[in-house]
Order: sequence, then structure tokens, then C-alpha cells
Amino acid sequence: MLNKRILLAARPVGMPKDSDFKFVESELETMAAEDVLVQSLYLSVDPYMRGRMSEAKSYVEPYKLGEVILGGGVGRVIHTSATGFKEGDIVSGMLGWQTYSVMPKDQLVKVDPSLAPISTAVGVLGMPGMTAYFGLLEICQPKEGETVVVSGAAGAVGSYVGQIAKIKGCRVIGIAGGDEKIAILKNEFGFDDAFNYKTTSNYQSALKNLCPNGIDCYFDNVGGAITDAVFALINNFARIAICGQISQYNNTKPELGPRILGQVLTKRAKIQGFLVRQFWNRAPEGIAQMAQWIREGKLKYRETIVESFENTPKAFIGMLNGENIGKMIVKVAN
Amino acid sequence: MLNKRILLAARPVGMPKDSDFKFVESELETMAAEDVLVQSLYLSVDPYMRGRMSEAKSYVEPYKLGEVILGGGVGRVIHTSATGFKEGDIVSGMLGWQTYSVMPKDQLVKVDPSLAPISTAVGVLGMPGMTAYFGLLEICQPKEGETVVVSGAAGAVGSYVGQIAKIKGCRVIGIAGGDEKIAILKNEFGFDDAFNYKTTSNYQSALKNLCPNGIDCYFDNVGGAITDAVFALINNFARIAICGQISQYNNTKPELGPRILGQVLTKRAKIQGFLVRQFWNRAPEGIAQMAQWIREGKLKYRETIVESFENTPKAFIGMLNGENIGKMIVKVAN
Repeated sequence: MLNKRILLAARPVGMPKDSDFKFVESELETMAAEDVLVQSLYLSVDPYMRGRMSEAKSYVEPYKLGEVILGGGVGRVIHTSATGFKEGDIVSGMLGWQTYSVMPKDQLVKVDPSLAPISTAVGVLGMPGMTAYFGLLEICQPKEGETVVVSGAAGAVGSYVGQIAKIKGCRVIGIAGGDEKIAILKNEFGFDDAFNYKTTSNYQSALKNLCPNGIDCYFDNVGGAITDAVFALINNFARIAICGQISQYNNTKPELGPRILGQVLTKRAKIQGFLVRQFWNRAPEGIAQMAQWIREGKLKYRETIVESFENTPKAFIGMLNGENIGKMIVKVAN
Repeated sequence: MLNKRILLAARPVGMPKDSDFKFVESELETMAAEDVLVQSLYLSVDPYMRGRMSEAKSYVEPYKLGEVILGGGVGRVIHTSATGFKEGDIVSGMLGWQTYSVMPKDQLVKVDPSLAPISTAVGVLGMPGMTAYFGLLEICQPKEGETVVVSGAAGAVGSYVGQIAKIKGCRVIGIAGGDEKIAILKNEFGFDDAFNYKTTSNYQSALKNLCPNGIDCYFDNVGGAITDAVFALINNFARIAICGQISQYNNTKPELGPRILGQVLTKRAKIQGFLVRQFWNRAPEGIAQMAQWIREGKLKYRETIVESFENTPKAFIGMLNGENIGKMIVKVAN
């Protein structure tokens, strides 16, 4: 059986381009007794994957050149003799950018299709959902009446963060790129207000207008000049969760910026970086709560679904360019 | 009775200079029933005072032009009818840069001269001591075997921080300006190693040599390029306490530096600014523990004592220039 795969052909310099990826077809690997053959249905493209394409060692190993690009996915079990799995089961795991994968069973999680559409297993009920849930509640610890600012607010994580903060009784301000995104944040996701950074010349004055009581919590997905503006307006004892720095990922050399530690000192602020995996043992709790909020109509989610496996690199580059609203997903098969 | 006082004559631009201060003599204020007349014996000059000389609102109100400069001091009660105080008592409080002060009794703390020399009430058993004790133990939470780096290590706070970290079983590396300071850190205060930033061209490579297992905790008194070098070497889950940014206080415009939030993210680090006053209700606990360590010979302290009230501005400027080892104090009277 032939497997279509996308390999890392070259380490991207700046924004990734088509020639950084190589499409190949190869025979499937042989399966061990407890392995599971999975057909990819949805593949996930996420900001952290840009980091793994670079050579620098980060919190996870860099992708190897010439190997399949690893990323999350949702699939259907095609064949297995592994205990606890059967043909037709829906599973999620690090399937990688390929149409089929042979996975050790302990690297797969079974997806309950009765909970929500299965694509949510890489979205609101998957890694991005847990990132929002634990990052906001554990790092920022927002309290009723506080002001919460979210950057990258129209992306998957950001759109969940803002809604969870609203559920917790906060004033929520989003920052995103595009008027359509801003309208969705306000009209669909219930943000108190939001602004389009692409058409705003002075971020700090825009934020100041929307945050008359200053900023108590900041959930940062982007870094750079937007984050600089937020820091200027934080309140005493502000809590800042560093989830992503997408504005910096394609820099070819490190960027300079205003020093922030003086502000951290005088405001007695806390900044904390986190990865969802440090909370992963509590994922069942987070998934149950998020699923309940969805059922109750308190939490909405959007997916930007790109059709066909061949468009996976395009979807990834589009996500880095902010072309998605909510979770960017590639649909590979029905 | 005439009182000598030092007023803020002008807001310093960059490093303060003599003409920013004005010496005056004036009659003592009248006393209310529960006031205490205190003769200054020791006056404290501290880095945070530079911040209060600027106009920008910070965590405390700026000093007012033409008013006496407020700062900590140790004094002797000369006259009072306040309950609980009597002539001859030794007290500490915000006496200000003056030879006598009329203080409401609730702004004074009685000093126990049997515990240690009374000058320590503005040093190791006072504000700087509590800054070190609570900042290190509460914010950095150092664990046995971890590597702790301290900048401004030969100053009052830094010298205590390093020794407390040694008591907790850590490897402790100090950064200070001057070979004499480095020798004292290693030979007297028991730091595992230290380097003189004034004669080191590459801070990062110096730190890398001295911290072969990376950096788990950083107690920052200085900011700027030294702190940039530390950030490059932090371990996963590093804890960084921001206590001071003395390298930045005399900047006439904000300095740019490398962005640090990418590193905070990948290392899942925590940065937290603090002020000693947020722990002040626990000061008795800290003072008792520090005094015990001094008695047991585990905690040593140095004081750089400048003689005579007239030299107070000079002592302050000297402290900003790093001329002190340990706590910089002005001795006003016997």
C-alpha cells in the first residue's frame, strides 16, 4: 500500500516556501504486534511546528531533514491487532504529514465522536484547547472583573482563551489581523472589544482606549511590537502567559526591543512561559470542561479547513500568515 | 533646635550630581502628642531612591522637589511622650536625609541592640536583608544542587542572597564590578565562583564556564547586558527574581535589548518582579532567621560606612557607581 508523505527538504529561512517541502510516495512500514495502522483524516498545522523546522535545539528536537514532518492528526484505524483498538476507531496522535501511519498504540488516544466533530480532537478539544484552558487558568489566573488581553486572538488558542476569560467574568480585549477577524471576535466569540493591528498605527494608544483600567492578564501568542505595547499598560501584579511568539518565528536574526524588566519590577508582574505538555496529565479534566461549555453554548469555535493532503504546506504557510480563523486544519480523507 | 536637611533641588538627568541636592538648616517641626523626636545615627542610601528622584510615577510616589529626601535610617529617641517609646530607645524608620526627625510613632520600629550592631537595622536585618531573604526564597525557590546566579553580588542584597543560597545547598555564582569584590565574594561570603564584569568582555562565555549545568535561579539586581547573558543560559523551569535594574536607572532614554520572551517560552521560565514591602508582614520571621544565621556564623555581612551627614549625597552617588561593598550607610552621629 502506497503512502503519500511530506518530508522536510530544507530548513526554511524566514517564511517557509514550497521548496522547503518534498512530496514522496513510499511503501508502508511493517507493523509490530501492538502497532496500529491509521488513515489520516485531518492533519493539524500549528505555529510550534515552525520552530521544529529550524536547526536550533528548542524544547523539542528539531525535525530531521529528509524525514516526514511530525504533527498532530485525527485518523481512522484501518488495521490492528493491538489490544483495545479495532478497525474503524477514531484516534488522535502525532500522525505526521502523511496519508497513513503505523503508530505504536501507546502514542494514540481514542476520540469519542459523540462528544463533538472529530476534527476538534486537534482543535478545541485537543492540544490548542488544552493550551488555552491550562495556560489561561493556571498561569494568568484571571479573576472576575479583571481585564484580559489576548494577542493572536482569532487563532485557535486565542479564540478559546478570550471566551474562557469571559466565562470567568473578565473584560476581554482581543488583538488580531483583519477586520473580518475583529468582527468575529466581537460578534461571535463575545470579546468586549478588539482591534486590527494591521490597520492600527499606535498599538499602545488603541489598547489604552480599550483598557481604561489597565491590563491585569495578558495571554501572548505573538510577541514583538504588540507585546511591547501591552507591557506599557500592565497593572500591579499583572500575570503574563507566554504561549507563542509567532511574530518572531520567521526572523532570520534576533530582533531587539525595549527592555521590559524595569516594568516587571515596578509592577511586580509575573511572566511565565509554558507548554501544554506540562499540563497534559490533566487533559481529561480540560477536555470534559471545554466539551461541557460547548454543549452549554458558552464556548464557540471555528475551524478553517483546507481540502486535500497536497495543500498541507500551503495551509501551514497560510496559518503563519494569519489566513485562518480559529483552528487551521487540513482535511485529508472523509 | 536646628535641623540639617538635604532637599531634592533638581531631578537628576542621568547620574545624580551635587547640584541636584540642597543643604538647608531649619527649625524642627512641632510635635503632636504621639510623635517621637529622633536623632539620626545612620542613614541609608539605596538604589530604589534613584527611581523616586525621577518624575515618572513608579511603585512609589516620586520625591517632591524642594522637600527632604526620604530614606531609611536608624536613630535614637531624644524626646517623646508617645506610649511605648522612651528617651534613648533605638528605632528605625523612614527618617529621611536630616539630622533630626519628628516621626509619628506608628512609622517607627524599635531596634533591639542586643541582636546585632544597630546599623544592621538598615542592612542585613532591615530592608535589604528582607529583600534578599524573601526575594530568593519566595520567588526563586532554590533547591539543593541547583545553580543560582546573583548580579550586583557584592552589594548589600546580593551578598546576602548568595549566602542564603549557599545555606540552601546551591552552587552560587556572583557577578560584581571589581577584583576586590570578587575576592570577598569567594573568600569571605563563600560564593562558589564569581567574575568581574568590568574586566570581562564576554559575559555569556564567562557564565558558561562557571555554570556547567546551566542556570536554575537568577536574582537580578542590575538588568542590562549582564542579564541578557544570563537569559541565554537558563535551564528549563528557571526562576528569575527581578529585584533591581540598577544599570538602567540613570539612562536618559530607554535602552533596547535582545527580546527575551522566546527564551522564556521554550524554557518555560518564570520571571517575577517584587518589592520587599509585599512580604513586610513576615519581616519578624525573616529577621529572626537572618539573626540566627549571623550568630551561627553562616551569614556574614559587610558595611561601607561613610562618615558625616554632609557626605550623604556623595555616598548615594558612590553606591550608584558601585563603590560600596555590602551595605552603604552614612554615619551621622554616635
